[in-house]
Parts: sequence; structure tokens; C-alpha cells
Amino acid sequence: MALAEVLQGMTRELGDLMGIAVVGVDGIVVEEYTAGQNIDMQSLGAEYSALIKEIGRASGSLSLGKMKEISIATDKATILMGQINSEYFLIMLIKPEGNFGKGRFLLRRDLPRLEKEL
Amino acid sequence: MALAEVLQGMTRELGDLMGIAVVGVDGIVVEEYTAGQNIDMQSLGAEYSALIKEIGRASGSLSLGKMKEISIATDKATILMGQINSEYFLIMLIKPEGNFGKGRFLLRRDLPRLEKEL
Repeated sequence: MALAEVLQGMTRELGDLMGIAVVGVDGIVVEEYTAGQNIDMQSLGAEYSALIKEIGRASGSLSLGKMKEISIATDKATILMGQINSEYFLIMLIKPEGNFGKGRFLLRRDLPRLEKEL
Repeated sequence: MALAEVLQGMTRELGDLMGIAVVGVDGIVVEEYTAGQNIDMQSLGAEYSALIKEIGRASGSLSLGKMKEISIATDKATILMGQINSEYFLIMLIKPEGNFGKGRFLLRRDLPRLEKEL
């Protein structure tokens, strides 16, 4: 199954998803899927890849072990991120009133599938 | 009700809490409560205050509105953070197998109480 198919499958299952992307730790989007609105996954990938690096560094310096998942809730969206491997992460942009629990379930279920494709 | 009492009340309700603190955006801990282990809330406050600033800046530059909550899951803990007001945030350190949902519920319930005390 190609990367794009996994992302499309997740979007079908979680109607609240505004956008989803596989992003390199350098901030470059490898594959993305958006729900039509003017969602700029490239900018999201660039901004959050820098943050993920910082959060990983902070967790390490605090002896909290490896970072696995991050969620950020703002007025306009919930951003859910998971580390696929040392080179790539998944970023999901969910509507603020969306089903965060289902998003997290799909993230955990499909990270191994994405890892196989990379 | 003093800050310390709110934090102790939250710790009583969420047995999985390893530590909790009210931290200024400058990284200085105002009030903290830890569950006995050698948890260094001062270092946590300092590291995560810098991250919160970065995350707030990123959310703003992506037009995602005001940042409300952040959670970071690592091998050894889940860190849950909420903005109390523009000057202070709350940071909760929950056991990895702990009840994240209840932590988030308590955070949302008690942020207004903490705001009144600051």
C-alpha cells in the first residue's frame, strides 16, 4: 500500500481531518492529503518539524525518554503528530470539535503501516 | 483557595500524577507539588516554557489562533500543559500508563480556579 493510500484511508475514517502529511525531520513534505480547504501542509510541516526537534531535545535533556506523540490544541484546530521513524513524522490537522480520540487511535494504528512504506 | 491547595487537590484526584506546577512564561516555577520521586519541576518548567513560547509563535504564524493545550507523550511520562493566562501556564507530569483523559478533564476544570489565584 502506497503512502498516499494510507493517508487517504485515514481521511476517509476520520471525517474531521482537515489535512494529513508525512513530513521529513528537515520539514519537507513527502506526501500529503487535504480536505479541499486552503490548508498549507508545507508551511505546517516546516514549522512543526522545528518544534519536534526542540521537543525531542527537551525530553532527552529531562531524561523522559523517546518522544512518541505530540498534540497541540488551538482555537482553530488540533494538531496531532507522531514519530514514524528517526527520519519522518506524521502530522494530522483535526477540526477543533473533531474526534481527537479517534485521531489518536488511527495515528497509533497506522504509524507501523507508514513505517513499512518509508 | 490558594494555588497550592488547587494543585494538591488535583494530585489527590489523579493518582497517576508524578508532578504538577504553575510556571511563569519566563520558566520560573511559582508553585509546585510532586509525588515524592525525584522529579525536578524547576528544570521541566524552564525547558517547557521555552517550547510553549515557540509553539505559540508557530500557531500564530500558521493562523491557527490561540494555543490552549499541549500534550507530549514520551516513553517515561505524558506531559500535559495548559495556558492559565498570558503570564502563566500549568504543567502536569503523568505516568505513561496513567489516565490522560482524566488529567485533561482536571486541567480544563481547574485552569479557571488557578487563574483566579494569579
